[in-house]
Amino acid sequence: MLPQLPDFSLTLEQQFDLHKYQQLVKEIPRPELEDLLIKVIRLKMVQENLSKGVIKNCLIQQGDPK
Amino acid sequence: MLPQLPDFSLTLEQQFDLHKYQQLVKEIPRPELEDLLIKVIRLKMVQENLSKGVIKNCLIQQGDPK
Repeated sequence: MLPQLPDFSLTLEQQFDLHKYQQLVKEIPRPELEDLLIKVIRLKMVQENLSKGVIKNCLIQQGDPK
Repeated sequence: MLPQLPDFSLTLEQQFDLHKYQQLVKEIPRPELEDLLIKVIRLKMVQENLSKGVIKNCLIQQGDPK
């Protein structure tokens, strides 16, 4: 059986936050905006690594015969 | 026992990419930069939701008596 498709939707709170950011972003000076983009990309990379670690651990533990 | 601290470091490849982005970001026009920031934040939110789903599934399956 194929695995269930992941849910790419945002929660209501996240949609609200994103809408707020879309307004805020216009008021940020250019250098800060560049800095912010790099920081968010960095955070995303770290989160990706952490997720991979968690999934790996999960698969290892599920493979353990109990 | 306390859980192991997560690893917040980037891989060499990610460090290289981030450095490249730091140069590229200076050449992006302001409106695109704003748009890009919002898109990356959105991606980060989706990734967060997916990770939570995976961790939840993992915990549920580990709780299952086999």
